[in-house]
Amino acid sequence: MQKPNIRPKPVKAISLADQVENNLIEYLNNNNLKAGDPLPKETELAEYLGVSRNVVREALSRLRMLGMIESKKRKGMVLSEPDLLSGVERVLYPNILSEESMKDIFELRLVLEVGMADLIFARLTEESIKSLEDIANREARDPGTNKLKTRLKYEISFHSKLYEMTGNNTLKRFQSMLLPVFNYMMEVESTLEHKPESGKISHFDLIETLKTGTPSNFRKNMREHLTPHYDRL
Amino acid sequence: MQKPNIRPKPVKAISLADQVENNLIEYLNNNNLKAGDPLPKETELAEYLGVSRNVVREALSRLRMLGMIESKKRKGMVLSEPDLLSGVERVLYPNILSEESMKDIFELRLVLEVGMADLIFARLTEESIKSLEDIANREARDPGTNKLKTRLKYEISFHSKLYEMTGNNTLKRFQSMLLPVFNYMMEVESTLEHKPESGKISHFDLIETLKTGTPSNFRKNMREHLTPHYDRL
Repeated sequence: MQKPNIRPKPVKAISLADQVENNLIEYLNNNNLKAGDPLPKETELAEYLGVSRNVVREALSRLRMLGMIESKKRKGMVLSEPDLLSGVERVLYPNILSEESMKDIFELRLVLEVGMADLIFARLTEESIKSLEDIANREARDPGTNKLKTRLKYEISFHSKLYEMTGNNTLKRFQSMLLPVFNYMMEVESTLEHKPESGKISHFDLIETLKTGTPSNFRKNMREHLTPHYDRL
Repeated sequence: MQKPNIRPKPVKAISLADQVENNLIEYLNNNNLKAGDPLPKETELAEYLGVSRNVVREALSRLRMLGMIESKKRKGMVLSEPDLLSGVERVLYPNILSEESMKDIFELRLVLEVGMADLIFARLTEESIKSLEDIANREARDPGTNKLKTRLKYEISFHSKLYEMTGNNTLKRFQSMLLPVFNYMMEVESTLEHKPESGKISHFDLIETLKTGTPSNFRKNMREHLTPHYDRL
Protein backbone atom coordinates (compact mmCIF):
# COMPACT_ATOMS: atom_id res chain seq x y z
CA MET A 1 0.00 0.00 0.00
CA GLN A 2 2.90 2.36 0.64
CA LYS A 3 3.53 3.63 -2.87
CA PRO A 4 5.75 6.66 -3.35
CA ASN A 5 3.57 9.60 -4.37
CA ILE A 6 5.49 11.63 -6.91
CA ARG A 7 2.47 13.22 -8.56
CA PRO A 8 2.31 17.02 -8.13
CA LYS A 9 -1.39 16.89 -7.39
CA PRO A 10 -3.94 14.13 -7.07
CA VAL A 11 -5.85 13.26 -10.23
CA LYS A 12 -9.21 11.58 -10.19
CA ALA A 13 -8.91 7.91 -11.01
CA ILE A 14 -10.83 6.95 -14.13
CA SER A 15 -12.61 3.68 -13.54
CA LEU A 16 -12.96 1.02 -16.21
CA ALA A 17 -16.68 1.82 -16.44
CA ASP A 18 -15.84 5.50 -17.06
CA GLN A 19 -13.46 4.56 -19.87
CA VAL A 20 -15.90 2.17 -21.46
CA GLU A 21 -18.66 4.75 -21.17
CA ASN A 22 -16.50 7.38 -22.88
CA ASN A 23 -15.45 4.95 -25.61
CA LEU A 24 -19.05 3.97 -26.23
CA ILE A 25 -20.23 7.58 -26.54
CA GLU A 26 -17.31 8.30 -28.85
CA TYR A 27 -18.23 5.25 -30.90
CA LEU A 28 -21.86 6.37 -31.25
CA ASN A 29 -20.83 9.86 -32.24
CA ASN A 30 -18.08 8.87 -34.67
CA ASN A 31 -20.30 6.41 -36.45
CA ASN A 32 -22.85 9.13 -36.97
CA LEU A 33 -25.59 6.99 -35.47
CA LYS A 34 -29.02 8.57 -35.29
CA ALA A 35 -31.94 7.99 -32.97
CA GLY A 36 -33.53 4.65 -33.85
CA ASP A 37 -30.34 3.01 -35.13
CA PRO A 38 -29.56 -0.37 -33.59
CA LEU A 39 -26.52 -0.89 -31.39
CA PRO A 40 -24.18 -3.87 -31.57
CA LYS A 41 -24.92 -6.65 -29.08
CA GLU A 42 -23.38 -6.67 -25.60
CA THR A 43 -21.11 -9.57 -26.51
CA GLU A 44 -19.88 -7.78 -29.63
CA LEU A 45 -19.26 -4.58 -27.71
CA ALA A 46 -17.35 -6.50 -25.02
CA GLU A 47 -15.11 -8.04 -27.66
CA TYR A 48 -14.66 -4.75 -29.52
CA LEU A 49 -13.73 -2.87 -26.34
CA GLY A 50 -11.69 -5.70 -24.85
CA VAL A 51 -13.57 -5.81 -21.56
CA SER A 52 -15.94 -8.17 -19.79
CA ARG A 53 -19.66 -8.21 -20.47
CA ASN A 54 -20.24 -7.01 -16.91
CA VAL A 55 -18.34 -3.80 -17.56
CA VAL A 56 -20.15 -3.26 -20.86
CA ARG A 57 -23.45 -3.77 -19.09
CA GLU A 58 -22.51 -1.18 -16.50
CA ALA A 59 -21.60 1.38 -19.17
CA LEU A 60 -24.79 0.66 -21.10
CA SER A 61 -26.76 1.11 -17.91
CA ARG A 62 -25.32 4.61 -17.57
CA LEU A 63 -26.22 5.51 -21.14
CA ARG A 64 -29.70 4.12 -20.56
CA MET A 65 -30.01 6.37 -17.53
CA LEU A 66 -29.14 9.38 -19.68
CA GLY A 67 -31.75 8.30 -22.17
CA MET A 68 -29.17 7.75 -24.91
CA ILE A 69 -30.17 4.14 -25.53
CA GLU A 70 -33.31 2.14 -24.98
CA SER A 71 -34.19 -1.50 -25.32
CA LYS A 72 -36.94 -2.27 -27.82
CA LYS A 73 -38.76 -5.55 -28.00
CA ARG A 74 -37.44 -7.69 -30.87
CA LYS A 75 -35.10 -4.91 -32.07
CA GLY A 76 -32.74 -5.03 -29.07
CA MET A 77 -30.89 -1.89 -28.04
CA VAL A 78 -31.38 1.18 -30.16
CA LEU A 79 -29.99 4.67 -29.92
CA SER A 80 -32.53 7.21 -28.74
CA GLU A 81 -32.72 10.96 -28.55
CA PRO A 82 -31.16 11.66 -25.19
CA ASP A 83 -33.04 13.56 -22.56
CA LEU A 84 -30.94 16.72 -22.26
CA LEU A 85 -31.85 17.46 -18.69
CA SER A 86 -32.37 14.11 -16.98
CA GLY A 87 -28.81 14.14 -15.63
CA VAL A 88 -29.35 17.56 -14.05
CA GLU A 89 -32.71 16.57 -12.64
CA ARG A 90 -31.18 13.72 -10.68
CA VAL A 91 -28.63 15.78 -8.82
CA LEU A 92 -30.76 18.80 -7.95
CA TYR A 93 -31.08 18.33 -4.23
CA PRO A 94 -30.78 21.52 -2.23
CA ASN A 95 -29.53 19.40 0.68
CA ILE A 96 -26.55 18.20 -1.27
CA LEU A 97 -25.67 21.20 -3.45
CA SER A 98 -23.13 23.73 -2.20
CA GLU A 99 -24.09 27.32 -1.39
CA GLU A 100 -22.06 28.38 -4.42
CA SER A 101 -24.07 26.20 -6.84
CA MET A 102 -27.33 27.35 -5.29
CA LYS A 103 -26.33 30.97 -5.77
CA ASP A 104 -25.37 30.27 -9.39
CA ILE A 105 -28.75 28.69 -10.04
CA PHE A 106 -30.64 31.50 -8.41
CA GLU A 107 -28.77 34.02 -10.57
CA LEU A 108 -29.57 31.93 -13.60
CA ARG A 109 -33.23 32.47 -12.86
CA LEU A 110 -32.76 36.24 -12.83
CA VAL A 111 -30.91 36.05 -16.16
CA LEU A 112 -33.51 33.86 -17.85
CA GLU A 113 -36.56 35.84 -16.76
CA VAL A 114 -35.18 39.16 -17.93
CA GLY A 115 -33.80 37.65 -21.12
CA MET A 116 -36.81 35.69 -22.33
CA ALA A 117 -39.01 38.67 -23.28
CA ASP A 118 -38.68 38.22 -27.05
CA LEU A 119 -39.67 34.55 -26.91
CA ILE A 120 -42.75 35.40 -24.86
CA PHE A 121 -43.87 38.15 -27.23
CA ALA A 122 -43.28 35.96 -30.28
CA ARG A 123 -45.53 33.23 -28.93
CA LEU A 124 -48.09 34.70 -26.53
CA THR A 125 -51.77 34.02 -27.04
CA GLU A 126 -54.93 35.56 -25.63
CA GLU A 127 -55.49 32.41 -23.57
CA SER A 128 -52.06 32.61 -21.99
CA ILE A 129 -52.60 36.28 -21.02
CA LYS A 130 -55.93 35.23 -19.57
CA SER A 131 -54.22 32.56 -17.43
CA LEU A 132 -51.78 35.15 -16.09
CA GLU A 133 -54.70 37.43 -15.22
CA ASP A 134 -56.44 34.59 -13.39
CA ILE A 135 -53.37 33.99 -11.27
CA ALA A 136 -52.90 37.70 -10.48
CA ASN A 137 -56.59 38.09 -9.59
CA ARG A 138 -56.54 35.09 -7.28
CA GLU A 139 -53.41 36.48 -5.65
CA ALA A 140 -55.03 39.91 -5.14
CA ARG A 141 -58.11 38.35 -3.50
CA ASP A 142 -56.26 35.89 -1.28
CA PRO A 143 -56.21 37.07 2.36
CA GLY A 144 -53.20 34.84 3.11
CA THR A 145 -50.51 36.68 1.11
CA ASN A 146 -48.85 37.97 4.27
CA LYS A 147 -47.60 34.40 4.65
CA LEU A 148 -44.43 33.51 2.78
CA LYS A 149 -45.77 30.16 1.67
CA THR A 150 -48.85 31.67 0.06
CA ARG A 151 -46.86 34.45 -1.60
CA LEU A 152 -44.40 31.89 -2.98
CA LYS A 153 -47.25 29.83 -4.39
CA TYR A 154 -48.54 32.70 -6.55
CA GLU A 155 -45.04 33.83 -7.42
CA ILE A 156 -44.22 30.38 -8.72
CA SER A 157 -47.41 29.86 -10.65
CA PHE A 158 -47.18 33.30 -12.32
CA HIS A 159 -43.54 32.94 -13.31
CA SER A 160 -43.91 29.30 -14.40
CA LYS A 161 -46.66 30.41 -16.76
CA LEU A 162 -44.25 32.92 -18.30
CA TYR A 163 -41.69 30.18 -18.96
CA GLU A 164 -44.40 28.08 -20.55
CA MET A 165 -45.33 31.01 -22.79
CA THR A 166 -41.83 31.02 -24.33
CA GLY A 167 -42.80 27.85 -26.21
CA ASN A 168 -39.32 26.52 -25.45
CA ASN A 169 -39.63 23.13 -23.78
CA THR A 170 -36.03 22.92 -22.65
CA LEU A 171 -36.34 26.30 -20.95
CA LYS A 172 -39.65 25.36 -19.34
CA ARG A 173 -38.34 22.08 -18.01
CA PHE A 174 -35.13 23.65 -16.79
CA GLN A 175 -37.19 26.09 -14.76
CA SER A 176 -39.41 23.46 -13.17
CA MET A 177 -36.32 21.48 -12.20
CA LEU A 178 -34.76 24.53 -10.60
CA LEU A 179 -37.86 25.32 -8.55
CA PRO A 180 -36.70 23.55 -5.38
CA VAL A 181 -33.59 25.72 -5.42
CA PHE A 182 -35.58 28.91 -6.03
CA ASN A 183 -37.85 28.01 -3.13
CA TYR A 184 -34.95 27.33 -0.86
CA MET A 185 -33.29 30.64 -1.72
CA MET A 186 -36.49 32.59 -1.21
CA GLU A 187 -37.00 30.95 2.17
CA VAL A 188 -33.47 31.98 3.08
CA GLU A 189 -34.22 35.54 1.98
CA SER A 190 -37.34 35.59 4.14
CA THR A 191 -35.34 34.82 7.28
CA LEU A 192 -32.94 37.71 6.72
CA GLU A 193 -33.12 40.61 9.12
CA HIS A 194 -33.43 43.08 6.27
CA LYS A 195 -35.98 41.39 4.08
CA PRO A 196 -35.90 42.41 0.45
CA GLU A 197 -38.73 44.83 -0.29
CA SER A 198 -41.20 44.16 -3.05
CA GLY A 199 -40.37 45.58 -6.46
CA LYS A 200 -42.31 48.55 -7.81
CA ILE A 201 -43.67 46.53 -10.72
CA SER A 202 -46.48 44.11 -9.85
CA HIS A 203 -47.75 41.04 -11.67
CA PHE A 204 -50.60 43.21 -13.02
CA ASP A 205 -48.06 45.69 -14.40
CA LEU A 206 -46.25 42.84 -16.18
CA ILE A 207 -49.49 41.66 -17.75
CA GLU A 208 -50.26 45.18 -18.95
CA THR A 209 -46.79 45.31 -20.52
CA LEU A 210 -47.45 42.07 -22.38
CA LYS A 211 -50.73 43.48 -23.70
CA THR A 212 -49.61 46.92 -24.80
CA GLY A 213 -45.82 47.06 -24.57
CA THR A 214 -42.74 45.74 -26.38
CA PRO A 215 -40.17 43.08 -25.47
CA SER A 216 -37.87 45.92 -24.48
CA ASN A 217 -40.46 47.40 -22.05
CA PHE A 218 -41.03 43.94 -20.66
CA ARG A 219 -37.31 43.38 -19.98
CA LYS A 220 -37.16 46.70 -18.16
CA ASN A 221 -40.25 45.96 -16.07
CA MET A 222 -39.26 42.39 -15.28
CA ARG A 223 -35.86 43.65 -14.15
CA GLU A 224 -37.65 46.14 -11.90
CA HIS A 225 -40.00 43.41 -10.62
CA LEU A 226 -36.99 41.28 -9.65
CA THR A 227 -35.10 44.17 -8.02
CA PRO A 228 -35.33 42.75 -4.49
CA HIS A 229 -33.39 39.69 -5.67
CA TYR A 230 -30.97 41.64 -7.84
CA ASP A 231 -30.12 43.82 -4.86
CA ARG A 232 -28.54 40.79 -3.23
CA LEU A 233 -26.02 40.11 -6.02
CA MET B 1 -45.58 -13.16 -24.75
CA GLN B 2 -49.16 -12.46 -25.86
CA LYS B 3 -50.41 -10.43 -22.92
CA PRO B 4 -53.64 -8.48 -23.23
CA ASN B 5 -52.84 -4.79 -23.39
CA ILE B 6 -55.45 -2.93 -21.41
CA ARG B 7 -53.29 0.09 -20.65
CA PRO B 8 -54.53 3.29 -22.33
CA LYS B 9 -50.99 4.22 -23.35
CA PRO B 10 -47.62 2.51 -23.09
CA VAL B 11 -45.51 3.38 -20.06
CA LYS B 12 -41.77 3.05 -19.95
CA ALA B 13 -40.67 -0.02 -18.04
CA ILE B 14 -38.66 0.88 -14.95
CA SER B 15 -35.70 -1.45 -14.60
CA LEU B 16 -34.47 -2.74 -11.27
CA ALA B 17 -31.40 -0.51 -11.58
CA ASP B 18 -33.68 2.53 -12.12
CA GLN B 19 -35.66 1.68 -8.99
CA VAL B 20 -32.58 1.10 -6.89
CA GLU B 21 -31.07 4.33 -8.20
CA ASN B 22 -34.21 6.27 -7.26
CA ASN B 23 -34.38 4.64 -3.84
CA LEU B 24 -30.73 5.42 -3.20
CA ILE B 25 -31.12 9.09 -4.12
CA GLU B 26 -34.22 9.29 -1.96
CA TYR B 27 -32.30 7.69 0.88
CA LEU B 28 -29.45 10.22 0.58
CA ASN B 29 -31.85 13.11 0.50
CA ASN B 30 -34.14 11.93 3.30
CA ASN B 31 -31.23 11.28 5.61
CA ASN B 32 -30.04 14.82 5.07
CA LEU B 33 -26.57 13.59 4.12
CA LYS B 34 -24.06 16.28 3.19
CA ALA B 35 -21.01 16.21 0.96
CA GLY B 36 -18.28 14.27 2.75
CA ASP B 37 -20.62 12.01 4.72
CA PRO B 38 -19.88 8.28 4.40
CA LEU B 39 -22.31 5.91 2.73
CA PRO B 40 -23.26 2.47 4.00
CA LYS B 41 -21.29 -0.42 2.51
CA GLU B 42 -22.47 -2.17 -0.67
CA THR B 43 -23.45 -5.27 1.28
CA GLU B 44 -25.49 -3.22 3.75
CA LEU B 45 -27.23 -1.32 0.94
CA ALA B 46 -28.01 -4.60 -0.83
CA GLU B 47 -29.62 -5.97 2.32
CA TYR B 48 -31.46 -2.73 3.06
CA LEU B 49 -32.85 -2.50 -0.50
CA GLY B 50 -33.49 -6.22 -0.83
CA VAL B 51 -31.53 -6.63 -4.06
CA SER B 52 -28.30 -8.28 -5.14
CA ARG B 53 -24.90 -6.61 -4.76
CA ASN B 54 -24.63 -6.48 -8.55
CA VAL B 55 -27.71 -4.29 -8.82
CA VAL B 56 -26.48 -2.04 -6.00
CA ARG B 57 -23.15 -1.74 -7.75
CA GLU B 58 -24.86 -0.72 -10.98
CA ALA B 59 -26.91 1.97 -9.23
CA LEU B 60 -23.83 3.24 -7.39
CA SER B 61 -21.99 3.39 -10.69
CA ARG B 62 -24.67 5.69 -12.04
CA LEU B 63 -24.46 7.99 -9.02
CA ARG B 64 -20.69 8.00 -9.35
CA MET B 65 -21.09 9.07 -12.96
CA LEU B 66 -23.24 12.01 -11.84
CA GLY B 67 -20.58 12.95 -9.32
CA MET B 68 -22.91 12.30 -6.38
CA ILE B 69 -20.59 9.81 -4.71
CA GLU B 70 -16.89 9.17 -4.80
CA SER B 71 -14.64 6.50 -3.34
CA LYS B 72 -12.00 7.74 -0.93
CA LYS B 73 -9.04 5.69 0.18
CA ARG B 74 -9.57 4.29 3.66
CA LYS B 75 -12.91 6.13 4.04
CA GLY B 76 -14.80 4.13 1.42
CA MET B 77 -17.67 5.72 -0.44
CA VAL B 78 -18.62 9.24 0.55
CA LEU B 79 -21.27 11.59 -0.71
CA SER B 80 -19.88 14.40 -2.84
CA GLU B 81 -21.22 17.64 -4.22
CA PRO B 82 -22.73 16.54 -7.52
CA ASP B 83 -21.61 18.07 -10.76
CA LEU B 84 -24.79 19.81 -11.90
CA LEU B 85 -23.99 19.68 -15.57
CA SER B 86 -22.05 16.47 -16.15
CA GLY B 87 -25.22 14.63 -17.19
CA VAL B 88 -26.00 17.28 -19.81
CA GLU B 89 -22.44 17.35 -21.06
CA ARG B 90 -22.53 13.66 -21.90
CA VAL B 91 -25.56 13.80 -24.14
CA LEU B 92 -24.80 16.98 -26.06
CA TYR B 93 -24.07 15.53 -29.45
CA PRO B 94 -25.51 17.52 -32.32
CA ASN B 95 -25.56 14.25 -34.30
CA ILE B 96 -27.94 12.64 -31.88
CA LEU B 97 -30.11 15.56 -30.72
CA SER B 98 -33.36 16.32 -32.55
CA GLU B 99 -33.86 19.54 -34.51
CA GLU B 100 -36.37 20.58 -31.86
CA SER B 101 -33.83 20.30 -29.03
CA MET B 102 -31.21 22.12 -31.07
CA LYS B 103 -33.61 24.98 -31.71
CA ASP B 104 -34.46 25.13 -27.99
CA ILE B 105 -30.79 25.34 -27.10
CA PHE B 106 -30.08 28.00 -29.66
CA GLU B 107 -32.94 30.11 -28.30
CA LEU B 108 -31.59 29.58 -24.81
CA ARG B 109 -28.41 31.29 -25.94
CA LEU B 110 -30.35 34.33 -27.12
CA VAL B 111 -32.20 34.48 -23.80
CA LEU B 112 -29.05 34.16 -21.68
CA GLU B 113 -26.98 36.74 -23.54
CA VAL B 114 -29.65 39.42 -23.39
CA GLY B 115 -30.51 38.58 -19.79
CA MET B 116 -27.06 38.47 -18.23
CA ALA B 117 -26.32 42.22 -18.41
CA ASP B 118 -26.68 42.90 -14.69
CA LEU B 119 -24.31 40.09 -13.73
CA ILE B 120 -21.68 41.40 -16.16
CA PHE B 121 -21.93 44.96 -14.87
CA ALA B 122 -21.80 43.81 -11.23
CA ARG B 123 -18.55 41.93 -11.80
CA LEU B 124 -16.64 43.44 -14.71
CA THR B 125 -13.02 44.47 -14.25
CA GLU B 126 -10.66 46.63 -16.31
CA GLU B 127 -8.75 43.50 -17.30
CA SER B 128 -11.86 41.80 -18.62
CA ILE B 129 -12.77 44.85 -20.73
CA LYS B 130 -9.18 44.82 -22.01
CA SER B 131 -9.57 41.17 -23.06
CA LEU B 132 -12.73 41.99 -24.99
CA GLU B 133 -10.91 44.85 -26.73
CA ASP B 134 -8.06 42.51 -27.67
CA ILE B 135 -10.50 40.11 -29.29
CA ALA B 136 -12.36 42.85 -31.17
CA ASN B 137 -9.07 44.39 -32.38
CA ARG B 138 -7.77 41.05 -33.63
CA GLU B 139 -11.07 40.49 -35.39
CA ALA B 140 -10.92 43.92 -37.07
CA ARG B 141 -7.38 43.30 -38.34
CA ASP B 142 -7.95 39.73 -39.54
CA PRO B 143 -8.23 39.56 -43.35
CA GLY B 144 -10.05 36.22 -43.15
CA THR B 145 -13.36 37.36 -41.66
CA ASN B 146 -15.20 36.81 -44.92
CA LYS B 147 -14.89 33.12 -44.07
CA LEU B 148 -17.56 31.68 -41.80
CA LYS B 149 -15.06 29.67 -39.78
CA THR B 150 -12.96 32.71 -38.96
CA ARG B 151 -16.00 34.84 -38.13
CA LEU B 152 -17.31 32.10 -35.86
CA LYS B 153 -13.97 31.91 -34.06
CA TYR B 154 -14.08 35.58 -33.01
CA GLU B 155 -17.79 35.45 -32.31
CA ILE B 156 -17.26 32.55 -29.94
CA SER B 157 -14.25 33.99 -28.17
CA PHE B 158 -15.96 37.38 -27.67
CA HIS B 159 -19.20 35.94 -26.36
CA SER B 160 -17.49 33.29 -24.21
CA LYS B 161 -15.58 36.09 -22.49
CA LEU B 162 -18.89 37.80 -21.68
CA TYR B 163 -20.19 34.62 -20.03
CA GLU B 164 -16.97 34.40 -18.04
CA MET B 165 -17.44 38.00 -16.89
CA THR B 166 -20.75 37.11 -15.22
CA GLY B 167 -18.72 35.37 -12.49
CA ASN B 168 -21.31 32.60 -12.55
CA ASN B 169 -19.55 29.28 -13.08
CA THR B 170 -22.67 27.29 -13.84
CA LEU B 171 -23.62 29.78 -16.55
CA LYS B 172 -20.11 29.79 -17.98
CA ARG B 173 -19.91 26.02 -18.12
CA PHE B 174 -23.37 25.71 -19.55
CA GLN B 175 -22.34 27.98 -22.39
CA SER B 176 -19.15 26.11 -23.21
CA MET B 177 -21.11 22.85 -23.30
CA LEU B 178 -23.67 24.34 -25.66
CA LEU B 179 -21.02 25.62 -28.07
CA PRO B 180 -21.18 22.62 -30.43
CA VAL B 181 -24.89 23.27 -30.87
CA PHE B 182 -24.38 27.01 -31.44
CA ASN B 183 -21.76 26.23 -34.06
CA TYR B 184 -23.98 23.76 -35.79
CA MET B 185 -26.89 26.21 -35.90
CA MET B 186 -24.70 29.01 -37.23
CA GLU B 187 -23.37 26.74 -39.94
CA VAL B 188 -26.94 25.92 -40.88
CA GLU B 189 -27.76 29.64 -41.02
CA SER B 190 -24.79 30.25 -43.30
CA THR B 191 -26.11 27.79 -45.88
CA LEU B 192 -29.50 29.49 -46.09
CA GLU B 193 -30.33 31.32 -49.28
CA HIS B 194 -31.24 34.47 -47.38
CA LYS B 195 -28.36 34.71 -44.97
CA PRO B 196 -29.08 36.72 -41.84
CA GLU B 197 -27.50 40.15 -42.09
CA SER B 198 -25.14 41.43 -39.44
CA GLY B 199 -26.69 43.40 -36.62
CA LYS B 200 -26.18 47.16 -36.41
CA ILE B 201 -24.34 46.88 -33.10
CA SER B 202 -20.74 45.64 -33.35
CA HIS B 203 -18.47 44.07 -30.75
CA PHE B 204 -16.82 47.50 -30.36
CA ASP B 205 -20.22 49.06 -29.65
CA LEU B 206 -20.87 46.47 -26.96
CA ILE B 207 -17.52 47.21 -25.32
CA GLU B 208 -18.32 50.95 -25.33
CA THR B 209 -21.65 50.17 -23.66
CA LEU B 210 -19.87 48.22 -20.92
CA LYS B 211 -17.52 51.16 -20.34
CA THR B 212 -19.99 54.03 -20.31
CA GLY B 213 -23.51 52.55 -20.31
CA THR B 214 -25.92 50.77 -17.98
CA PRO B 215 -27.15 47.17 -17.82
CA SER B 216 -30.33 48.40 -19.49
CA ASN B 217 -28.36 49.94 -22.43
CA PHE B 218 -26.38 46.72 -22.70
CA ARG B 219 -29.51 44.57 -22.90
CA LYS B 220 -30.85 46.80 -25.66
CA ASN B 221 -27.59 46.71 -27.62
CA MET B 222 -27.02 42.99 -27.18
CA ARG B 223 -30.56 42.38 -28.43
CA GLU B 224 -29.76 44.51 -31.46
CA HIS B 225 -26.44 42.70 -31.97
CA LEU B 226 -28.28 39.36 -32.01
CA THR B 227 -31.05 40.58 -34.34
CA PRO B 228 -30.04 38.32 -37.25
CA HIS B 229 -30.66 35.28 -35.04
CA TYR B 230 -33.80 36.69 -33.43
CA ASP B 231 -35.26 37.29 -36.88
CA ARG B 232 -35.39 33.53 -37.33
CA LEU B 233 -37.60 32.85 -34.31
